[in-house]
Formats: sequence, C-alpha cells, structure tokens
Amino acid sequence: MLEELKKQVYEANMELPRRGLITYTWGNVSGIDRETGYFVIKPSGVDYDKLTPDDMVVMDLEGNKIEGRYKPSSDTPTHLELYKKYPEIGGVVHTHSPEATSWAQAGRSIPLYGTTHADYFYGEIPCARVLTQEEIDEGYETNTGMVIIETFEERGLNPMHTPGVLCKNHGPFTWGKDAAEAVHNAVVLEEVAKMATRTELINPKVQPAPDRIRDKHFYRKHGANAYYGQN
Amino acid sequence: MLEELKKQVYEANMELPRRGLITYTWGNVSGIDRETGYFVIKPSGVDYDKLTPDDMVVMDLEGNKIEGRYKPSSDTPTHLELYKKYPEIGGVVHTHSPEATSWAQAGRSIPLYGTTHADYFYGEIPCARVLTQEEIDEGYETNTGMVIIETFEERGLNPMHTPGVLCKNHGPFTWGKDAAEAVHNAVVLEEVAKMATRTELINPKVQPAPDRIRDKHFYRKHGANAYYGQN
Amino acid sequence: MLEELKKQVYEANMELPRRGLITYTWGNVSGIDRETGYFVIKPSGVDYDKLTPDDMVVMDLEGNKIEGRYKPSSDTPTHLELYKKYPEIGGVVHTHSPEATSWAQAGRSIPLYGTTHADYFYGEIPCARVLTQEEIDEGYETNTGMVIIETFEERGLNPMHTPGVLCKNHGPFTWGKDAAEAVHNAVVLEEVAKMATRTELINPKVQPAPDRIRDKHFYRKHGANAYYGQN
Amino acid sequence: MLEELKKQVYEANMELPRRGLITYTWGNVSGIDRETGYFVIKPSGVDYDKLTPDDMVVMDLEGNKIEGRYKPSSDTPTHLELYKKYPEIGGVVHTHSPEATSWAQAGRSIPLYGTTHADYFYGEIPCARVLTQEEIDEGYETNTGMVIIETFEERGLNPMHTPGVLCKNHGPFTWGKDAAEAVHNAVVLEEVAKMATRTELINPKVQPAPDRIRDKHFYRKHGANAYYGQN
Repeated sequence: MLEELKKQVYEANMELPRRGLITYTWGNVSGIDRETGYFVIKPSGVDYDKLTPDDMVVMDLEGNKIEGRYKPSSDTPTHLELYKKYPEIGGVVHTHSPEATSWAQAGRSIPLYGTTHADYFYGEIPCARVLTQEEIDEGYETNTGMVIIETFEERGLNPMHTPGVLCKNHGPFTWGKDAAEAVHNAVVLEEVAKMATRTELINPKVQPAPDRIRDKHFYRKHGANAYYGQN
Repeated sequence: MLEELKKQVYEANMELPRRGLITYTWGNVSGIDRETGYFVIKPSGVDYDKLTPDDMVVMDLEGNKIEGRYKPSSDTPTHLELYKKYPEIGGVVHTHSPEATSWAQAGRSIPLYGTTHADYFYGEIPCARVLTQEEIDEGYETNTGMVIIETFEERGLNPMHTPGVLCKNHGPFTWGKDAAEAVHNAVVLEEVAKMATRTELINPKVQPAPDRIRDKHFYRKHGANAYYGQN
Repeated sequence: MLEELKKQVYEANMELPRRGLITYTWGNVSGIDRETGYFVIKPSGVDYDKLTPDDMVVMDLEGNKIEGRYKPSSDTPTHLELYKKYPEIGGVVHTHSPEATSWAQAGRSIPLYGTTHADYFYGEIPCARVLTQEEIDEGYETNTGMVIIETFEERGLNPMHTPGVLCKNHGPFTWGKDAAEAVHNAVVLEEVAKMATRTELINPKVQPAPDRIRDKHFYRKHGANAYYGQN
Repeated sequence: MLEELKKQVYEANMELPRRGLITYTWGNVSGIDRETGYFVIKPSGVDYDKLTPDDMVVMDLEGNKIEGRYKPSSDTPTHLELYKKYPEIGGVVHTHSPEATSWAQAGRSIPLYGTTHADYFYGEIPCARVLTQEEIDEGYETNTGMVIIETFEERGLNPMHTPGVLCKNHGPFTWGKDAAEAVHNAVVLEEVAKMATRTELINPKVQPAPDRIRDKHFYRKHGANAYYGQN
C-alpha cells in the first residue's frame, strides 16, 4: 500500500541524519497521499540505521493506523492537524536541529536578515506560543498543531510562503509540497537560524532587511514571475 | 572474566570518538556487573585506536584491580563512588566534551530551556562545586565522586531523573542503566549544553521552560505512563 | 568551445561543496577567456551532483548566451559587470557561506584583525550598500555589480588587493586571476569572517591590527618583493 | 640525511589537516636533531596533498639550508630562535587554527579555566606583543621568535610547562619534546581556546580556576609524581 510514498517518506527521513539535522531519533518526516487521504510517517523511536521503507506507518486523517507493524511517531497528531488544515501541504518535518531549536528555546521569531532567508520564507519565521496546562492535558501533540495554526491565523501568514514555524521551548516544524521539500525547508531553516544568531552577535543593533529585498528574492524564486532555476 | 561486559564497555568507549565527544584520550566509560560487584573500565591514557575489549580493566568496589594488564583510568575512584552510592546505575561516563565542559568551566548549572533537555533530564543539570585543598590532598578522584553525591543529596535530586552532572572547572560525568545509556546521555548533555549557550545568546533574558513542559516531555518518555518509542 | 575553461569552471564550482561553502545550489563560479571575451558560468539551480563540465553556460559580455543547454546562473549579470569593469579579474564566485553572509546581513565591513586576513586582503573587506527600489526594478543583478563597483571606486580600493566584497543583506562575492583563485579567496573570506566574529566576542573593544602588520604580511605574499612560497 | 626525522616531521605536518587545524598551507611543523644541530621543516607554500617526506628541508641553526629542493617555510627563522634558546624543545608548530588565532587577534592571553587546560599548560597561555616597525624591518620572522622569548623571560615562564604562545594579530606557536608532541599541543590549544571563548559567553564574570586545581591536574600528568597513563 502506497509503496512509492513510503519510499519517498523513508528517503526524506534518511536525509535528516545525512544533513546533520538530528541526533539519535529526534526527528520525523511524513508525506500524504491526498487522493486516499492517508499519510505515511516514521515509526516512534526506531534507530535510523535500522529503518526500511516498509517500517513506515500508514495513518488516516482521523488518526487511525491503517497499516504498519510499528507505532507511529509520537508527534503524529501534530502532522495530522497541519494536513487537515492546509490542503497545499504534502509533507511535514519535525526536528530538534540545534540552531533552530535554540531560537525556539529563546522564544523568538527569526527576523528576516537577508536573501538566504527571503529565498524561502516571506518574512520572519514565527515562534508559536507554549501550550497551556489544559492544552497539554487535553492532547499535547494535537494542540501543538492547533497552536501552530493559531499562530498562522492570527498573523495572517500563508503557510506556503512561510513553510515553517518554531514551537516555543520545543523546536521547529517545516513543511512543503512533499516530504522532500519539507526536509529541504528544514535544512534551510537551520542554516538561516545559524546565520541570524551570528548576525546579531556581529551587530547587536541590526535591523531586518528592507522589504524590497525580501520581495525581490522571494518572487525571484516563487510565483508567476520567478526566473531562478531552469523552469 | 566478564567477557560480555568488557565488550559492552569497550563498545561504549569507542562510541565517544565516533560521537565527537573526545579529543585524544580525554574520556572514559565503565560498566558494572551488580552480581559480582565488579566493574569494568578503560585503561588510563591508551589511544582509542589501539584499544581492544581485552584491554578493559576489571575492578572491585574497594578499588582493587581484579584483572587487566593495564592501570585503570585515573578517574576510576570517581566511578566507584557513584556505583557504591547509587545501585540503579549500571554505567558511568566522563568526558571533556567542549560544550558541556564550557558550562562546567563557567561554573553554571544548565537551565532547562526546552524539550530536548526535558526528554532526558528532569530539571537543570547541576554544577557541583570545586574541591577544597583538603579534599584534593586526601583523594582527588574519590572526593570528586563525593562532591557529586553531596550535590545530589543537597538538592534532593534523583540520579535516574538527572543522569549527569558538571564538575566545576573540570567537565561532565553522566550515567545510565548501562554503559551504552551512559554514553547516550553524554551525547544528549553535549547537545543540550550547545543549545543552551546559543539560547542565551539569542535571548539574554530567557527564562527556563515552564514546569508543565518539563513534566510532559520527561514523563512522555519515562515511567509508567510513557508512550514514546515502541514499548 | 572553451572546453578547457569549462572544465576549470566546473572544477571550481565543485570545490564549493567540498569546502563547505554552500548548501544546495546556493553559489556560482564563473571564469573568463579574455581573448574571445566569453565567460563560462554555472547553470541556475542545477544540483551539484548532477553537474558536468558540458553543463557550463558560455556567455558574452553583452549578456548573450553563446552556448549551453541550460539557463545561466541568475547572478550572471553581476559577474558580467565585474568582468567588464576589471580586466585583471579572471574568475568570480558568489556564495551564501554562513560566516561571511552573517557579516553581510549585519551590514558591516570585516576589520583587518590579523595576518590571516592580511595575507590575502589589504585592508578591511568592504560591505556594499543595499540597492534602492529603482535599482532593483531596473535590473537587480546588474545593479548588484554596479554597487560593488561604486563601493570600490568611492573607497579607492584596488580589486586585486581586496579580492572580495560583502553585499548587504545578501552575501559575499570574491574574485581572482582565475576561477580557482576566486574560490580560494572565497574560502579565505569565510575563515577570516569566522575568526573576526570570535575575535570581537573575546575582546569587544578590539582594534584592527596595526598597518605595519597588514603591510608586512600582504607584501610578503604579493608583489615584487614577495618571498612566501616557491617563486 | 636524517631520513627518520624527515618522516616524523612529514607525519606531523600531515596531522595538521587531519586534525582540522589548517586551511590550505597555513601551517608548518619542524623537528630538530640535537646531535647534528640540524632541523627539518616543511617547505613554503606547497600543497599538503603533494608533500612527501623527501620534500622536507634540512636547515642548520645559523639558518643555512643544508639539504632540500624547496625553499623552507617562511616562518623558519622563528622556529630557529626557539630551538636556539630552548634546548629542551624538539619540535615546533605554527598554525592559523581559528579558535586560537581569534584569541591572538583579540590580543588576550587565554586564562586557565579548567582541567583540560591545566592538564597541558601550567597557567594562562600568554599572548606576545606585536612587533615594532623596526623589528619588522630588521627581520620579521626572527624577531617573532625573539618576542616570544621576551614574553617567556619577562613572565618567568618555563616553556616546557607552557608549551605554546599566541602572537598578537597573528596566531599560535606550540612546541614539545618532538614534532608529534608539538602538534598534540597545537590540538590541545585549539580545543582549550574554543572552550575558553564559550566559557566567557556563558558566564561573562567567570574567574580562572583555583590554583589548587591547576596544580593537581598539571602534576597528575607531569613530573615525578605523575600517575596519569601507563608509566
């Protein structure tokens, strides 16, 4: 079932250690098949070097396991909420990558300081608030998704223009049109976070880049007038 | 004698350079067999690439060498004190891993800033005081163990919920149910230390994560109600 | 056509990931043949592990594509302006290497703090201003080149003595007598930027190195009285 | 001639890129044969991956080349002064390793913050002053050695207890009983420098470690009462 998607999601998961985004099993990637409404996700706490495509777990959008010998990632309900809310999203990633997680722990959104950021994220990368005791008790992982959505709603953000978020005191989630692009955005976020920290050390009074630089670079790569790449 | 344990302890020692936790011979791992009361530890100052399982030294809890051609690690008496005091501990690690050692040199406990920390350490990672002249003269390595124990006693810490410590002006010790878990916790400590430094650079006024986040994440992975992983 | 130059430019491009200067496709190298006035540049947005020498694009100094199945790098007009203005330049590189880009994002020139810097750059590495809306609209990449030139003109800099620049909110460009030397200078700039950041953390009141150190080291390696190396 | 020493010095030079201490050709190692009074040093500006033991240059202590097809390292006169002044020294290293060089650029001696430092350096690692114009004109590399010696004389330092120095606005020199130990000390210095920077970021008011910790750790590894290692 969904063999091709399982393979893609497996490959996207294996990219996390290759790119230095995770230590041990601290990450997970999923991908969705919008026709069936099923999504495929990494099992919980299984070593990366023992994973195979067949170990991926198939879930439906009600949170039922459809197929798989393992329990799915404990963060599965967060992925699920994002898939339900945002039909444009085809893949979701969670990591504890150190540079992005440090911003999450610091409780700050990452300002747009340059074109590396603007090539992928149209504006600051938001930091979502921490959950209340009630939200934790009621369903920690589901409500993590809900608070991400709340953040995007309140700030009027388009998730395809801001394909990632920091969860306060926790770490980053990113997404994309498929699992591979979601991982790509996780790599970018880590690099952008690293440079933002250094930027502020070098110039503690630095201001975000002008909007015209953000607009130029984002739309050079995205949308109808894009001219970066071969298409 | 204790061939299986020697192999485990050897493997745990070899994990230190693989994980980037040590330079040259600046680290040691031990593991204990609670039935015989013997523990196995790396020899002192031998290059990692020349070590074999047979080079591991067998000690008893009085500090007598039971077997082995080499002198044991100079830090052996510290390991011994921890094994004597805490019967739950099956493995102990000491390194000079740079991020954790920087906190030890700075003389600060590592605040709990996020879920990466809370997944393994229930609260701050304590920094134990420096030894007095008398303690150094009387038995430096033994008293290093005693001061770690004093720190845990005074602060009412459960060593299985806080499986590591920073020794001021020195470096970290970690432990676990066996040698492999002790090394795992040394890797986690290094990553947590790295992120804590960055967190404070990004937000010099940052506060520790709320207790409810600490409780949720620690007990998601530990204890009767844990649901992370496949068990 | 220009097979040897294509090979050199290809090799210089491949050096970028080997030296850790780029993530994904965030960089480009070109080299020029001054006899024909044609330059060779990496195609836009093609994965490094799929590139071959034959994929390099041949351009003239009016910006016409002379040969190549791909579109050239979107930064081609910046390279072109530098080649037109400075006949001594034989190769140009653009990257988003993190340490140098952090200085560009911070909007600061890199002070000359030591001999590593002075061995290659005779004085601070300038940070060029951000483009105006008009300049962006009129031709972003061309005007990026023009603002680099403006910076060198206004500050009276010799581009062969200062073989690189930071573009504010963007990243570095470097150059040299050929593509390989331009990449060499990109590696040096990244290392110099990394050390400058640390230098200021260690001593927030640090002053630039004395001019006599700059002069000694630069002219030990460059010009008629150089005595470094085998020539 | 001195084939065994050439091989040792070659191996010690090759250890520099393996340990991440150098970029391109920014480093050099020498070793001396005290019987003949000849020392062997890397040639100037030759790529590490092209070096062979036979490329090492043999020099006498008057600065005459005794054997070798290449010019010796431009820093040869600095090595020479150290060998002449300190008969205990058997090997010398110069690098631009980034963490130590950042301290040199900052113009600060590295305080002794912990046992990693004290295991190798008995007290702070001194930063020598910058040369005067006259000293540069008269003989830059020779006088670099003289200023190192002046620093040790004025501060009453034993070069075997403080086997390294930072040259202001330049970088580190280290030494040891032979070329291999000199490189070992260069690796330690880089690690110690990295941790000292982080230590001060974590606690800007940090004080050096107590003298009793310095004494205990230094003499645990050095001198008549040493008990670290297998001897």
